[in-house]
Amino acid sequence: MRIISISMLGLAALLFIRTATAQTDPLPSWNDGQSKASIVAFVEAVTDKKSKDFVSPTDRLAVFDNDGTLWAEKPFYFQLAFALDRVKALALQRPEWHNKQPFKAVLQGDLAGLLAGNEHALLDILMATHGGMTTIEFEQIVSEWIATSRHPTKNRLYTEMVYQPMLELLVYLRTNGFKTYVVSGGGIEFMRPWVKQIYGIPPEQVVGSSIKVKFELRESGPVLVRIPEIDFIDDKEGKPVGIHKFIGRRPILAFGNSDGDHQMLQWTAAGSGLRFMGLVHHTDGEREWAYDRKSSVGKLDKALDEARARGWTVIDMKHDWKVVFPFEKR
Amino acid sequence: MRIISISMLGLAALLFIRTATAQTDPLPSWNDGQSKASIVAFVEAVTDKKSKDFVSPTDRLAVFDNDGTLWAEKPFYFQLAFALDRVKALALQRPEWHNKQPFKAVLQGDLAGLLAGNEHALLDILMATHGGMTTIEFEQIVSEWIATSRHPTKNRLYTEMVYQPMLELLVYLRTNGFKTYVVSGGGIEFMRPWVKQIYGIPPEQVVGSSIKVKFELRESGPVLVRIPEIDFIDDKEGKPVGIHKFIGRRPILAFGNSDGDHQMLQWTAAGSGLRFMGLVHHTDGEREWAYDRKSSVGKLDKALDEARARGWTVIDMKHDWKVVFPFEKR
Repeated sequence: MRIISISMLGLAALLFIRTATAQTDPLPSWNDGQSKASIVAFVEAVTDKKSKDFVSPTDRLAVFDNDGTLWAEKPFYFQLAFALDRVKALALQRPEWHNKQPFKAVLQGDLAGLLAGNEHALLDILMATHGGMTTIEFEQIVSEWIATSRHPTKNRLYTEMVYQPMLELLVYLRTNGFKTYVVSGGGIEFMRPWVKQIYGIPPEQVVGSSIKVKFELRESGPVLVRIPEIDFIDDKEGKPVGIHKFIGRRPILAFGNSDGDHQMLQWTAAGSGLRFMGLVHHTDGEREWAYDRKSSVGKLDKALDEARARGWTVIDMKHDWKVVFPFEKR
Repeated sequence: MRIISISMLGLAALLFIRTATAQTDPLPSWNDGQSKASIVAFVEAVTDKKSKDFVSPTDRLAVFDNDGTLWAEKPFYFQLAFALDRVKALALQRPEWHNKQPFKAVLQGDLAGLLAGNEHALLDILMATHGGMTTIEFEQIVSEWIATSRHPTKNRLYTEMVYQPMLELLVYLRTNGFKTYVVSGGGIEFMRPWVKQIYGIPPEQVVGSSIKVKFELRESGPVLVRIPEIDFIDDKEGKPVGIHKFIGRRPILAFGNSDGDHQMLQWTAAGSGLRFMGLVHHTDGEREWAYDRKSSVGKLDKALDEARARGWTVIDMKHDWKVVFPFEKR
């Protein structure tokens, strides 16, 4: 009786340990496999003081693309949805837009016609909706939009369209002393108002595209006015430039999902010591979307070839992720 | 006997407490007075959870000008000394410079002639010495220069020409949960290689002027090449723009010393809640330099008027600082 008792105690202890281990898995939404293992192996190597790959905490910089890497980007970039909504809102004071392209196409719901147009059409829309107000006014506009607008097909808030496994990865990295950054082709001021709440990343750790800003001393006090002129494009070759400009140091981990992230991954890979380069490959047409080489949004072609040739980690969304979005969790 | 013994114990305890308090003064190089008191009162108010002026740690952002605020700027900006030294070094491969202005003036030691020239002369020298190499090469050039070059009149390393009271202030703020930034008209890449060691500020917390940078995929791997074209001037109206661009939030404390910092102070003052605006007034012609309204380097005129009108803290270097430079300490 006594022996059995001890055995049962031992079994209970074993079960407890197993449960505790399962509970403290830092990446519970990742299926076990090569992708998850490569992430964990990297983090363990650079944080182990006895490892030859140890990296001091001040050099543990990790950069993440946003569209298609931290949140979804289909059927089109969420910032474009914001711009189209702004055209509709601003048209109340701009009746002439009903007869003027590219605004007319937006107001008539002719998205196909708009996207088929040249790049100038999109640029005109971005400038008309992102410039002409103070930085504080723009922050309020973004904050209101992001809190209330919903994805056109999933009917979820855009901030719910984030990838649960990537949220876990951000926390896992920070728990291990990493400083996490967003490095996005999207607008820096479109992201800053909500990144802290959604990703746990403070506004100053966002690198992105921007329009010009001008200081003005008004009677009511100083303001910064947004000028409808491109200041910086944080995409492709611009990403290493943006990382250098804003951070001034080379990251040891970079995650992207498209050819727009290719140069950022190359730049990260070219540093000395152990490095981690990751790509989110959109392979899940059921829970999310399946696309790569032929997609107009989030095209992944050359970066995928280089990733496979050099052994970078390519996440297979369908097989590597237990859940995609937080709302799938029970 | 017993009573005396206890008395002596009490006296010893009292002395110990006094000594301990003196040892933990966070600003030992500051004389007691209004300036020091205003700093301490501000920090205590924003860090006291029971105070109406409490500011959460994530919003405790403090920005500091560099030239004339954290280190000296006389007889001329230290980065200009760097540029002049670079002209001399590069002239070995550029013999034509001996007959070409403004390089000829530099090589002949005609600094007065150079400074009397137009702004284009200085810009030509900055572009010729700061562009045309990779970012990694430039970092090495700056690191070697800063480790070996000495101030023309004080014969000290430039990194010894920092203000001991300001170093203490940076530590005091960080100890109280502040994130400290440099926001300088000087070159961002001229500062980043040494700010961590000298100010305890990491490279990513430096905002400054910059030239353009271009990504190139060479056979040896990717590089960022410095292009001799102005990208951003972080001075005057540019300082609030730079703060907004790089940090994306308004600081609650700003320190400068010249009219180049005026708009940064105005921008900081215009936020809600308790704010601290400080100016270092160079009043000490013996230990440092005495200059303000008439100086070509570090001119302080309009910002001084506004500081006095609005009750900002104006540091009187001669009277407020026990020591100016760390090397004065015994």
